[in-house]
Amino acid sequence: MGVLTSNRLLHVADMAGDILDRVRRRRPRVHCITNSVAQNFTANALLAVEAVPSMSTAPEEIADFVERSEAIVLNLGTLDMERRQAAEIATQVATKKQLPWVLDPVFVDRSPSRNEFATRMMARAPAAVRLNGFEFKSLARDNAEEGALQRYALQQRCIVALTGMTDTVCDGVRVVRIGNGDPLMDRVTAMGCAATALVAACLAVETDAWLATTAGLLAFGLAGERAAARARGPGSFSVEILDSLASLDRTIVLECAKVD
Amino acid sequence: MGVLTSNRLLHVADMAGDILDRVRRRRPRVHCITNSVAQNFTANALLAVEAVPSMSTAPEEIADFVERSEAIVLNLGTLDMERRQAAEIATQVATKKQLPWVLDPVFVDRSPSRNEFATRMMARAPAAVRLNGFEFKSLARDNAEEGALQRYALQQRCIVALTGMTDTVCDGVRVVRIGNGDPLMDRVTAMGCAATALVAACLAVETDAWLATTAGLLAFGLAGERAAARARGPGSFSVEILDSLASLDRTIVLECAKVD
Amino acid sequence: MGVLTSNRLLHVADMAGDILDRVRRRRPRVHCITNSVAQNFTANALLAVEAVPSMSTAPEEIADFVERSEAIVLNLGTLDMERRQAAEIATQVATKKQLPWVLDPVFVDRSPSRNEFATRMMARAPAAVRLNGFEFKSLARDNAEEGALQRYALQQRCIVALTGMTDTVCDGVRVVRIGNGDPLMDRVTAMGCAATALVAACLAVETDAWLATTAGLLAFGLAGERAAARARGPGSFSVEILDSLASLDRTIVLECAKVD
Repeated sequence: MGVLTSNRLLHVADMAGDILDRVRRRRPRVHCITNSVAQNFTANALLAVEAVPSMSTAPEEIADFVERSEAIVLNLGTLDMERRQAAEIATQVATKKQLPWVLDPVFVDRSPSRNEFATRMMARAPAAVRLNGFEFKSLARDNAEEGALQRYALQQRCIVALTGMTDTVCDGVRVVRIGNGDPLMDRVTAMGCAATALVAACLAVETDAWLATTAGLLAFGLAGERAAARARGPGSFSVEILDSLASLDRTIVLECAKVD
Repeated sequence: MGVLTSNRLLHVADMAGDILDRVRRRRPRVHCITNSVAQNFTANALLAVEAVPSMSTAPEEIADFVERSEAIVLNLGTLDMERRQAAEIATQVATKKQLPWVLDPVFVDRSPSRNEFATRMMARAPAAVRLNGFEFKSLARDNAEEGALQRYALQQRCIVALTGMTDTVCDGVRVVRIGNGDPLMDRVTAMGCAATALVAACLAVETDAWLATTAGLLAFGLAGERAAARARGPGSFSVEILDSLASLDRTIVLECAKVD
Repeated sequence: MGVLTSNRLLHVADMAGDILDRVRRRRPRVHCITNSVAQNFTANALLAVEAVPSMSTAPEEIADFVERSEAIVLNLGTLDMERRQAAEIATQVATKKQLPWVLDPVFVDRSPSRNEFATRMMARAPAAVRLNGFEFKSLARDNAEEGALQRYALQQRCIVALTGMTDTVCDGVRVVRIGNGDPLMDRVTAMGCAATALVAACLAVETDAWLATTAGLLAFGLAGERAAARARGPGSFSVEILDSLASLDRTIVLECAKVD
């Protein structure tokens, strides 16, 4: 909605713009254990908002990278033995150093062993989990409805961010729905993975994890919406969304955010 | 040729358009064991025609992904131990489930151990093999001429698709030559890998493997030709070809197919 | 500088243009052991200047690929066990076959174990090392100033190429500074990795390693500068730089090189 209708919504959009500014100013280091399909685009999405990505998944050096980072992404795509080991180490280091991290349980609905691994990772206290409806049903064994999201958020003490036509961000008490985005986002790989990485960048600069998660998804949805207006198809869309992320600012967030 | 000169060619182009329509409607799941260079572009090429890609190469979960797919790509680029193990499992599951799969024996002419592995995979009955002239000579130990392609197709009971300036698709009896495409396709990595993935998507919705292979390569060649008309170089070409794939329809296929 | 002010500088730009011509004519095979984030873009950068990339990191086949190549890239990003093993083998084969190779010690400032590995690799006589200021300080344990670069080049008997706002290429005696480039190059991942790969392509066709390294970095800087003039952000920049590389020629190099 161009005109925000309540103080609360105005506050959310305003805070999101402020968080995005802080990311650009502080340039947080975000270490990503992510799938090999998404690594390049995810790094570019982080660089577009001036965060500093690193991507090693080697167990021999993962602790070094995590220790020197300000937030962590754990994305379970292409979950090989190396990534499983790296995830074990990274989550331990993150816990010890009190670094925020986000779980992206890609395709847990397709593989029982991946689902089991995701469940173990949820027990290690991520700040947030971002997933789609199929993944939520598989991981939470519940319907992907707002009540269930809130229950899961309370039970796991973790922000639950469900993305789709509308994105929903819950902390067990607060809930926000984000209407920005475009169907082209489903026609390019790694879009969800990159959204998760933006959430991590925001968590690096904002301690209210619900606000940080909202800011990351809102920024990505806005960038997608603006990119779609210029794109001629999924190829040009994936180029335009990086340009849009790089040019996104507080004014655009305040004017174009569709939150309720 | 803009004007098709025989019922048979009209039939091929018409069927190709129909197969492409079916891919868009049914959205087959295509699991790809492919090289790390090509994963992102291949996923995007599949998404551009509305197929649903997955890309794990982890032996621990490959069976789960293959079982839930409708066609498989086995591309031998960056052939590490993990991919070798994944290929063994995936081809066994595919055989058991009678899923069609396509072999892409990248660079078998560069590495004897890779060539040996490709030969073993050929014995596991892929529906089709897509390769270039160097790779064919190395794998089939024969010249890359039509007679040799036909012999190899008969011997291996497999569709043989040789790509280059002209693409040739043989089943041992039938043969079609596809003239669509553009030299820029050799100036961007992963183009052959993506063509193979389109073939897999077509095999998921069409039981005549020769027609399905032809449809996949024709769609890719047409998209490449149309992309080249808009591109200013290899960078913009790789963007345009995804846009072109997404907008390709039956009318374009019928009007622009150059098959004989 | 549009007008070159000395014979020496004219010579450098002229030679760089000539080396680039040779790359296009001879199409050298460049095998890259590089990180999974950069593989796709690096392959495309090499293809844009008509070199022929290969990217396997599998220890089982790395010797086959290196033996059939004319230059090697060893980039230490995402340095897993497989890449460590591949690097050991590749550098041995390269030494035996007297193939030039370039080291890109990505993020050695972030991980002591990676730094140690890079130090071991430096002892294996790369033709050149390309790095940024942080990486140089960490690897050479010295300030990133021209005197220190020259000392390190002499000590290691290796071309030292420091990239940043200005690129500096030293062989212990000669030094050249390249002013071409654009800040957008820091906003897209894999740009340094691709620059290193261009250096390798140039080393394949020119025995004076200092000139070859200069040619590679100059070509990349020029392409970046020209791409930035057309780009609207980091997404379109990464597309434009490939188009620019493909259209770069001797005339552009002579007219636009900023070397001193």
